[in-house]
Amino acid sequence: MPPPHYNRFLQPEVQLDQRDSIDVVLVSPRNPLNIGAAARAMANFGFRRLSVVAPYAPPWREARSAVGAPELLASAAETETLAEAVAGCTLVAGTGTLTYRKPEQPVVPLPDLAPLVQRELARGGRVALVFGSEKHGLTRDDLSYCHLLIEIPTDPRQPSMNLGQAVAVCLYELASRVFQPAAGTGEAAAKNEGTAGSPSAPSRTLDRLAGVVEEAMIAAGYSPSSMQAANRHDLRLLLRRLAPTERDSRRILGLFRRILWRLKRVPKGR
Amino acid sequence: MPPPHYNRFLQPEVQLDQRDSIDVVLVSPRNPLNIGAAARAMANFGFRRLSVVAPYAPPWREARSAVGAPELLASAAETETLAEAVAGCTLVAGTGTLTYRKPEQPVVPLPDLAPLVQRELARGGRVALVFGSEKHGLTRDDLSYCHLLIEIPTDPRQPSMNLGQAVAVCLYELASRVFQPAAGTGEAAAKNEGTAGSPSAPSRTLDRLAGVVEEAMIAAGYSPSSMQAANRHDLRLLLRRLAPTERDSRRILGLFRRILWRLKRVPKGR
Repeated sequence: MPPPHYNRFLQPEVQLDQRDSIDVVLVSPRNPLNIGAAARAMANFGFRRLSVVAPYAPPWREARSAVGAPELLASAAETETLAEAVAGCTLVAGTGTLTYRKPEQPVVPLPDLAPLVQRELARGGRVALVFGSEKHGLTRDDLSYCHLLIEIPTDPRQPSMNLGQAVAVCLYELASRVFQPAAGTGEAAAKNEGTAGSPSAPSRTLDRLAGVVEEAMIAAGYSPSSMQAANRHDLRLLLRRLAPTERDSRRILGLFRRILWRLKRVPKGR
Repeated sequence: MPPPHYNRFLQPEVQLDQRDSIDVVLVSPRNPLNIGAAARAMANFGFRRLSVVAPYAPPWREARSAVGAPELLASAAETETLAEAVAGCTLVAGTGTLTYRKPEQPVVPLPDLAPLVQRELARGGRVALVFGSEKHGLTRDDLSYCHLLIEIPTDPRQPSMNLGQAVAVCLYELASRVFQPAAGTGEAAAKNEGTAGSPSAPSRTLDRLAGVVEEAMIAAGYSPSSMQAANRHDLRLLLRRLAPTERDSRRILGLFRRILWRLKRVPKGR
């Protein structure tokens, strides 16, 4: 659907860098048409950074080689795990299969997402929007890398959106209300700009911190082996709730390294 | 993409009648997948009235008979002309091929559409959203039935949206900002941040936590006596920056108590 003849919304030269602080992450997409549709929506709304996690090879190949495929498909990052895909991101927002699940992190209605993204970008952060596979959405493990979950206001009787349409709706919301704060959320945007502080540490820092804390848990006998997986999962979520800055993460890391070093000096069996 | 487990947006019993005052009109769609996608987006956002103008017979048949096709496809109105399709509407909003044309009516950015639709519905009107065919959009004649043209804020370098995605984006906008006017405004967003999760723990909890962490710092030899006052101060600030909830504070406390208990078993001088 070609648009009206003029477009007063986007001034590419000014805003592209900011849009490049948003990653769209597709986890194990299965349908080449959906991959293509997601990429097309990105191109429509001026986003360029696509990551694909553990894609099924044939549809991924097919999507990339489709006639008229947006350029950004060719430059998409490909990773084995979601942890790698969001390693550099300071705010990871999941969308996904929670119909029968109690979410473990805040649920933010999509129409309320803009101020949060705006604040994150204002303080120099990177934001990831993570979409699960068409088949089963994001897994519980995937969700443990997310700071929050986005809720698209769908009808409870037909809640499940097509992947390409869900991507389009999320990017439309950001394009019109984060990068064009005048439209819709002017006041919220203005209020928000004042609160810029340091961004939270990126995902990879939290993962490194979680590793050392877990070692300390084990060394202190806090985490019996039967509980290690559950504790690791909870710890990942806890660190995302706390959202420490890079600097604070380094301090906490320093403390736990010292504790760990000391714990290893405790004689066995005591 | 299934949504989060709860949805506080739609109360079908109250609002369906109002949504039924919105018609989605597809003019001569050609691709059954697009027709299906448009219908799915309607079902996702709780809209039920679809009209199809002069459809190409084979794709129209195919879309209606597709497995899992939304019910509203079966009850869609079929007309020969756009004039008939919008005959009962008081506000007709077109989307379409205006790239090389001077529009003859007001152009309204989609993020600014909600108040107009709201006013129309409040005074008992009916609204049509009209989408042209994938091939050439709305004709000049079609456009002459429109009161206004909707502009979706796409990137001028890749302005042309897929039909199903354009429908999804327009209906998302109406679903979240006409039928849920509270969502998206600065105030709603601000309120939401507070209510998104549990409140942070009160100061006394942070102080109790700080006390145990400090003991662990000393027991681990992290905090030499010359630094203890400074570290205590920094720790207090750090905990306030992290702003853990009461529940998270208790977990962290539990871990540090265990660590402390264990550290005290390290023989002196090691």
